Amino acid sequence: MKEPTKQLSDIGDVTPETFREQLHQIADWIADYRENMESLRVSPNAPPGSIRAALPVEAPETGESFEKIMADVDRVIIPGMTHWGHPMFLGYFGWTTTAPGILAEILSAPLNVNAMTWRTSPVATELETVVVDWLRRWLQLSDKFGGVVFDTASVGVVHALAVAREEAATSVRKMGIAGRTDIPRFCIYTSDQAHSSAEKAAIALGFGEDNVRRIPSDSEFRMDVAALDKAIRKDLRQNFRPLAVIATVGTTSTASVDPVAEIAKVCREHKVWLHVDGAYGAGFAILPEYKWITVGWEEADSIVANPHKTLFVPLDFSVLYVRDLERLRRVFTLVPEYLRGDTVAAEKNYMDYGIQLGRRFRALKAWIIWRSFGRQGIAARLQENVRLAELFASWVKADSRFELSAPVVMPVVCFRLRNSDDEANARIVETINASGKSYLTHTKLHGRTVMRLGLGNILTKEEHVRRIWDLLRGF
Amino acid sequence: MKEPTKQLSDIGDVTPETFREQLHQIADWIADYRENMESLRVSPNAPPGSIRAALPVEAPETGESFEKIMADVDRVIIPGMTHWGHPMFLGYFGWTTTAPGILAEILSAPLNVNAMTWRTSPVATELETVVVDWLRRWLQLSDKFGGVVFDTASVGVVHALAVAREEAATSVRKMGIAGRTDIPRFCIYTSDQAHSSAEKAAIALGFGEDNVRRIPSDSEFRMDVAALDKAIRKDLRQNFRPLAVIATVGTTSTASVDPVAEIAKVCREHKVWLHVDGAYGAGFAILPEYKWITVGWEEADSIVANPHKTLFVPLDFSVLYVRDLERLRRVFTLVPEYLRGDTVAAEKNYMDYGIQLGRRFRALKAWIIWRSFGRQGIAARLQENVRLAELFASWVKADSRFELSAPVVMPVVCFRLRNSDDEANARIVETINASGKSYLTHTKLHGRTVMRLGLGNILTKEEHVRRIWDLLRGF
Repeated sequence: MKEPTKQLSDIGDVTPETFREQLHQIADWIADYRENMESLRVSPNAPPGSIRAALPVEAPETGESFEKIMADVDRVIIPGMTHWGHPMFLGYFGWTTTAPGILAEILSAPLNVNAMTWRTSPVATELETVVVDWLRRWLQLSDKFGGVVFDTASVGVVHALAVAREEAATSVRKMGIAGRTDIPRFCIYTSDQAHSSAEKAAIALGFGEDNVRRIPSDSEFRMDVAALDKAIRKDLRQNFRPLAVIATVGTTSTASVDPVAEIAKVCREHKVWLHVDGAYGAGFAILPEYKWITVGWEEADSIVANPHKTLFVPLDFSVLYVRDLERLRRVFTLVPEYLRGDTVAAEKNYMDYGIQLGRRFRALKAWIIWRSFGRQGIAARLQENVRLAELFASWVKADSRFELSAPVVMPVVCFRLRNSDDEANARIVETINASGKSYLTHTKLHGRTVMRLGLGNILTKEEHVRRIWDLLRGF
Repeated sequence: MKEPTKQLSDIGDVTPETFREQLHQIADWIADYRENMESLRVSPNAPPGSIRAALPVEAPETGESFEKIMADVDRVIIPGMTHWGHPMFLGYFGWTTTAPGILAEILSAPLNVNAMTWRTSPVATELETVVVDWLRRWLQLSDKFGGVVFDTASVGVVHALAVAREEAATSVRKMGIAGRTDIPRFCIYTSDQAHSSAEKAAIALGFGEDNVRRIPSDSEFRMDVAALDKAIRKDLRQNFRPLAVIATVGTTSTASVDPVAEIAKVCREHKVWLHVDGAYGAGFAILPEYKWITVGWEEADSIVANPHKTLFVPLDFSVLYVRDLERLRRVFTLVPEYLRGDTVAAEKNYMDYGIQLGRRFRALKAWIIWRSFGRQGIAARLQENVRLAELFASWVKADSRFELSAPVVMPVVCFRLRNSDDEANARIVETINASGKSYLTHTKLHGRTVMRLGLGNILTKEEHVRRIWDLLRGF
């Protein structure tokens, strides 16, 4: 923006001058927070309820000053946070903040548009199409696939399976599935390593969580395709209707990758929808050495990728691709009268592709961070995460007190103390987390508790990985 | 944050010094944008596709500079936007940006936590409980109601009706509703003025859009309760199962308010779930003169309010209240193995209350804006919007060429040119919007096209309302 031509007499609550000063104060606060982060505890150790106890129960009757609120941010908010951006935060799928990602999110704040129709913000709509297309190419999906941005992969799979349901029976959108004798009992298949969003979708869509079949996985935590085929055949004999298989690329515990191409064959044979949950893993397709994970995707009906996990976009930004996106539109488009004028001759109205009408200008942050890094920059950062994970895994392997609990497929390492019980492993994680020095998670694999390290933060350097290893060896 | 104690050697992509400089540049950009906004067109007038045509189809292979990206923001993004924050933007429910709201959203950017469990960010969880409770008191709901923050009211009503469905039949969560002979055909009732999210929820949950009964409204666009009762009785005779009534407080076209207390009586008689869609209107309950709108809410099973519409919180921030929130948890809680350690002894894990696991730290922005304004400050700003709407309506009434098309209940004014056809009214709106001078919407009431003005932006002053009136009188 150049040369302000007009000073508004009043920006509603503070003068333009004061607002500008406050913006600069926040700029310094953010820079300080980020430079200072490493000196903070990674997460607090206060008991539940202690933050609420430090805050007034009643909302204030009159306005409070910026200074007072910022003092409370420093006093209550920062010490109460688990700092996901801390270089020693190694939990879950260690996603990351980045300088351009923060700037991009900040830039969206004053815009505050609703990207429900093209007309309500042409650029938010068209830029969404642009970045969804960039990502599609990175994922090596053909242009048969079209995408839409949602908040989360859990919402994405609800939409994908709604399309599957529509196409598997007559007039579901119009007449529903309740109380109809011509609607079969639908089943969903996914591995025992898959995300709980499968059950949440089954609950929401009316399939029922008991009709999610958890297919066993092999020794490396990949869906057993023979077991899948057997389960489908059994259900067919018992008059269930196999509706969809959810294959996972990057499972939640170990980042294992289901054999999508083989699963696709089973799906084709039984005419079952194939959804690929690449919420975590799909982003790695940008790396040539991970091209193998994309085999079979082109056979899928839908794919989810979460760039807020692996592709540096700030939360929330999840993309659902559907082969022929029009199939999704047919299930969800509904144009109310007060928006009818908006939808004439529009390029695309993203509200037609899902449940939500209110939609933030999410494309902006993806566009900025992806341009800032470029494909090569994204790839280099992912490769560094993989390198650090492999380095850590090599230390685990070389130390007779520890053992790896799963192959390192993506930058996630599952490991445990050899010859120890579940509690000993869980206790290490809890002790480290309580110390504030780092943050790990634990999970269960083959019935045993293991520790788990997720690398995704660009602030996490080799020195930090050495530091957690030193902490672990101290037990 | 005080005294940075340690300079990270590298913040991953730019030096701390450069990042700080860029933050200050963005601070000035935002201040300039806001001061300068009035000199911008409210919305562009380029045909669909022209923005995409100005942008590269392929993502860049290597990173691009901050300066280049910001130049493109000025060149492509800003001219392509519909500026919802512009004082002459008078479309939809004219929500607003505010200085503290922008600062609050900015402050969230470097944090980027996932508020799925208490442990993944204790303060995000506890602050959500705090602000949801502040709002509950403002809405004059008893503490029987508990709330959870979603992105939109559309997602809120899906969750509310999922609970209704669970309680209206046996083991829906476990066994679903498909292919079961003991599940009735569920019906949903809402007025012909209600939001299309009713149908979207009916589609998602498997009720079917044909099973949403649109009940006629009276001359002032409020649901006809006798017609509702009649429709329910008819459905009961025909073996449908009336599941829920959605009463609206602040309908989308005219902001009319359904007679909730009378509707509640009908719901009680027929044991039907009552959902109050106060997405737009509920926020006005903070004003003593709007206390009348809250009558009957305490009888509801669920209520949605969207503070991103009327209570100054940046998009997205919608709260679903359920009488006994545990009912919602029972339908959606699912704790996967890798999160089990997180959920022990936690205060509340908001992921248990809905479909999404990924959840932004939304509470922070509500807490900051509500503290900045205080209850009185919020009330005064809403009252000013009401005053401006009534002022505009008084001009319409006084001018024989125009007529009001609906009572002014909240700061929304529907009006039309007297003795004119639909096209003439639509054409005025389209001409004004194409001029870039303002932005209005049109809608249909009693089968006729009317123009519509929504006031909610704190930058919109009496001078702006006079300006749109001058534009309108010029036709």
